[in-house]
Parts: sequence; structure tokens; C-alpha cells
Amino acid sequence: MLYLVIMAGGSGTRFWPESRRARPKQFLTLAGERSLLVQAADRCRTWIPTANMRVVTNAAHAAETSRQLPELAREHILLEPCGRNTAPCIGLAAWQIWRNDPDAVVLVTPADHLIRPESEFRATVERALGLIDRQPRASVLLGIEPSYPATGYGYIERGEPASAGEGGASRVRSFREKPTLETARRFLAGGNFVWNSGIFVWRAARILELLKEFQPAIYDGLERLERSAQSHGWEAALKDEFPRMPSISIDYGVLEPLAARNSPDDGVFVVPASFEWDDVGSWQALPGVLGTDDEGNTSSGMTCQIDTKGCVIRSTASHLVATIGLTDFVVVHTADATLIAPKGDESAIRKLVALLEERGYERFL
Amino acid sequence: MLYLVIMAGGSGTRFWPESRRARPKQFLTLAGERSLLVQAADRCRTWIPTANMRVVTNAAHAAETSRQLPELAREHILLEPCGRNTAPCIGLAAWQIWRNDPDAVVLVTPADHLIRPESEFRATVERALGLIDRQPRASVLLGIEPSYPATGYGYIERGEPASAGEGGASRVRSFREKPTLETARRFLAGGNFVWNSGIFVWRAARILELLKEFQPAIYDGLERLERSAQSHGWEAALKDEFPRMPSISIDYGVLEPLAARNSPDDGVFVVPASFEWDDVGSWQALPGVLGTDDEGNTSSGMTCQIDTKGCVIRSTASHLVATIGLTDFVVVHTADATLIAPKGDESAIRKLVALLEERGYERFL
Repeated sequence: MLYLVIMAGGSGTRFWPESRRARPKQFLTLAGERSLLVQAADRCRTWIPTANMRVVTNAAHAAETSRQLPELAREHILLEPCGRNTAPCIGLAAWQIWRNDPDAVVLVTPADHLIRPESEFRATVERALGLIDRQPRASVLLGIEPSYPATGYGYIERGEPASAGEGGASRVRSFREKPTLETARRFLAGGNFVWNSGIFVWRAARILELLKEFQPAIYDGLERLERSAQSHGWEAALKDEFPRMPSISIDYGVLEPLAARNSPDDGVFVVPASFEWDDVGSWQALPGVLGTDDEGNTSSGMTCQIDTKGCVIRSTASHLVATIGLTDFVVVHTADATLIAPKGDESAIRKLVALLEERGYERFL
Repeated sequence: MLYLVIMAGGSGTRFWPESRRARPKQFLTLAGERSLLVQAADRCRTWIPTANMRVVTNAAHAAETSRQLPELAREHILLEPCGRNTAPCIGLAAWQIWRNDPDAVVLVTPADHLIRPESEFRATVERALGLIDRQPRASVLLGIEPSYPATGYGYIERGEPASAGEGGASRVRSFREKPTLETARRFLAGGNFVWNSGIFVWRAARILELLKEFQPAIYDGLERLERSAQSHGWEAALKDEFPRMPSISIDYGVLEPLAARNSPDDGVFVVPASFEWDDVGSWQALPGVLGTDDEGNTSSGMTCQIDTKGCVIRSTASHLVATIGLTDFVVVHTADATLIAPKGDESAIRKLVALLEERGYERFL
């Protein structure tokens, strides 16, 4: 059986004032009519039953997650008492799925990326599943063909084609974290590098096996959690055990050492994605995702522009944001706060949020 | 007895989005805690009884006027069915006051100027009243010592000192409407020009006498209104008669020809004001009125600035407006609309409001 694990534990301030501590990016409706989290669930809805969906999120976001995905059973929303990066997150979900279905195959995906069209997402995942069918101990990553020399993404170097390599699957030769611009240009020119989408397909049993080998502290923690839950209850046990696990990403903690070992059939593979992908990293990303009008503006909600160029302007359906003579700014209106910041300065919002924190404006954080 | 007539019929869009058709400038709280209209009433409250106060406003603003000045009797708020400039407005109020008190002296003032301190306003009016005491047929204007060569104001040229000229009162030699910058500089250098504050002191009976002489159509209209009200009721009569009066200012229609006649005792006089005066013509005027912080910003409500200079930023107590990297802009947040416009472009808001009208955004007008 195929299961979907949506990693929705992210936090962050890059979408302030829409994103807040209580409502990070994955819960926002940045493109289209649905939040990124709801889109992540919806894009699998026709081919993965709801009962097979799991969301791993921070305990603080339990209510918002249930509100956005009311069809999910309460016990299918796994609540991390604190963030521990992706390895414990995936381990936790894999364990919960594996204990009920030892043959489960798991599609793991971040909650906060934009993927279009949904049909191509499914087609790509099907190719990964085909590979797993033939090589059950494979760990498969979806790779995104790079369209520009991005310095903010992780890259995957493709090696030789997988032996069961239909759909362009290759072995992963190496992982390269955020490169310099020069290196990124070389990657792009070389043609054998793809972006790491953070989307994985593998058997739940294989995930646990790999954690046991490469991250025994996490595996032991999961075992202790299982035992402790029987005597103390799940919630108390999780609160006790989860924070003790090392905070490490699945890429760095498991897949990189596994790929480096270069063993023939139980290694790491990459399947090229045929869908459009964007991680929507900041307000600045919206023009690329939503397009621009003739003046280079990307606007949503009720807005009115005069002599306004290259701006990202967001409002609600009932509040009018009128701009005159503004160039290359981000303007975001929400019910209780409005941001006006230069589009080019990605650090601006971080500075602002730090200042709000310093001033004790808690309710805006 | 002294009466106060507050002319609150103004409309206009220069303070959009705070000002709307239903709530023009005089009803806004631009400086301090009270609206300009309330300030206009309050500055006379200790020395003119409430029963002697009249507000002339547009019928559309009846409710807002009563809300802001609940102590005013309903019949003391005179409702113009349409705007007809200041001559019919003052005529209407003068007639209503005169018919009950033929000896009434009337202080006429616009509702939408900022005047500080209140004590000096009273002192200046007292000097004007002293002149009227000695020369009952005088029409007295308050003049403002110009502080810069303004091109947006009307100027009054001072002639010889009034024969009962204590307090610096002079005869008015001429009126000069909005001059060119060069002329304004000459006025300023010459020293015998003051700004026309639009504040007048004269006997109600004298106002009517002057209207009868210089604007007989208005005087006749007032007489017809009186008769018609007796048979058809005040409201119906006003709706019928008022729109037929010529739309003309008291300055142009009465005081200019009166001053030109240069008769000794029943002419036009100007008393120099000892108070600070600002007509707060646009958002751009706020820094001059409210002052600026170290970065040259004038802000009110909940705001937070980073690298923000020379801006006017207005929000409410509960909505945070955060600006980064903004220079010389006006940012105004209200419950249903937010404006971001260059501070230097006084025509920007007019263009915007025209565009909103064109697009049928009625509820924002």
C-alpha cells in the first residue's frame, strides 16, 4: 500500500505579515485558492486514500492542520513536540505506518512547495514506484531539472542510469548543498545536476533500516517511544522521547552516507520530475509563480495601481490597497498588519520581525 | 450677543482614504485627539454659549455633524441641500441668527483649519469685537502673518490703520487670490500682506445689508426662503430656494467690491492674528503641523519603521504598518483602504480617486 507523509513542521517569517508563528508558510494560500498544505494533500487525493495520509507538524499547529484538513483522522496528524529536522520526522511517520503495514511504501513530501500540474506529479511518483517495485531496497528522490543557476537549493549529481532505469532514473552520485553562483552555473552547464525537491519514495521498512544503520540514536528513540507509549500513553511518551532525538536532515543524516557507499541495489536513486516545481521561498518568488501584469506587478485581492511597477501587492477581497509611484516593492496587507518593503532586499523582513520581537509586539509574531 | 458660525460644508478627496464623500476633512482627527470640526467648536466653548453656535454643513453630513457635536440642538445645524460656496452659507446663518437677535454679532469660521493656542484665537477675536464695538458697520477679517511665500492662499493687502485701530487693525486695501511664487515672494518681502484666514467678525444685520447690496439674488433668496418656510415648512423651502442662489464666495461676492469702494467706517478691516494657523491642505501638511522624528517621519497609530525617511505614516491603534526602505512617501491605513503615494505629488490622490470612480469602486469614495 502507498502512503503519503506530508512534512508540515516548517516555521519561519519570510511571509510576514501573512505568516506568523501560529501560521507558517504551509498554511498560507500563496497561489491559487488553497493553502500549500491543502494542495499537498489534494494532489494525491485521487490515488492515495485519505486513511493512508499522514501529516507531521508541530504541536502548536495541530488546530490549524485539523482545520485545513478536516478529513484527516486526528491520529493521522503526528504532532512533534519540537522541531528536529527531517530525519526524526520521517522516522516517526515511517514507524507509525510500518507497525500497521510492514509492506507500506511511503511518499514523503514537504508541505510548502508549489507543484503543477498534479497529473505530472502523479506520473513522476509512478515512475519512482516502478523502480521500488523492481528494487525494493531503493531510496528514490525526485529531482527537478534546474532552470537557472539557483544558489539557494540543494543539488543532486546524477550517476549511471539505474539498472531498472525506465523514466530516466539514475543512481545518485553525490549531494551538493547550496552552491556558489559560479558552481551553480557549472552545474547548470554540465547537465547532470538536478535540484533536490525533498520528495522521497521508499518502503517504510527500508527507512527504519537505514535509520538503524546511519542514525541509531533516532532509531533507538523510536523504539523507546513505542515501548514508553504502551505504559505512559502516546502523547506523554512522544513529549519525552522526541526532543532527545538528534536534529538532523534525512539527506545529511542518511542519504548522503548511503549514496557515498555506492552499493548496487539498495542505494539512492533520482527520478527526474516532469512537473513544474517552486519552493516559493519568499514574497519575491510570487511573480515567478503567479506571473505579472504589463507593468510587472503581481497583485491579488483588491488593489489599484497608478505608476506602480515591478511590485508584489497582496490584499484581501474587501480591503483596497492603492499604490502610486511605487517601484519594486512588496506590499502585503492583512487584517492586523501591513508590510511595505523593497522587493530586492530578502533580509528586510527578517530584520523587521527581529525588531518587532525586540519591541515586544508579540501579537504580530 | 456673540454667535459662532462654523462653515462645515467642505468636501474633497485630498485626505483619502481617511476622507470620503461621507466624511470630508473637517470630520477627521488629523492633529490631536479631536476632529477639526470639534476643535473649531471647542476653541470658542468657554466664551460663546453652545446655544449661540451654528454649524452650516451639507445635508449629507447631518448625522456625522450631530455625532461629533451632540450638544448642538438639531435646529442649530443648518443643512445645505447642495454646496453654494460661502456667500449663501453665511447669508443663511446670518438670517437665522438675525431674525431672533437683530443685534447679533457673528464670528464666522471654516471648520477645517488648525489653530493654536485657543487663548490667542480668543484674544484676536476680542480685538476684532473691539473694532466692531466702535465701528458697528465694519466687516472684520482675521489675517495671518505669512511665514513663507505660499501660492495656495489668498492674500490681503493692508491699507491705513483703522481709525479705531487698536490691536493693529488696518483697512483692507485689496484682496489678492492665490499669487504666483514670484508675486508671493514680493508680498512676503513687502510686509503689508497677510493671508486671508477665512475667519470674519461682523454684525448679522450688516451681513444681510451687504448681501442685499452686492448679492441681491442671495438676499432675495433668503427672503423667499423665510416666506416659503412659513407655508411649506423649513426643509422643503430650503430644498427649493437654496439651490437657486448663486454659488459665490463672500470674499469675491461682497468683501472685494466693498473694500474697493473704500468708504470710511463701513468698510473691510483686517486684524492680525496672534495665533498659529494652518489650513492642513493635504497629507503633506502634517509634518509642518505635527512635527517629525529624527528620520523626518511623521507617524501616528501603530507603526514600525526601518530605513524609512521623510514619510507620513498613519495607522490605527490596532493595525501595524511596517515600512522598510521607504523615502518621502505617504502611507495611510484605514479599516477598508490603504494608500501608498509619493509625498511630493499633490495631484496623486486626485488621480487615484478619479480612477476609483471610473472603476466604480463607489464604497471607497
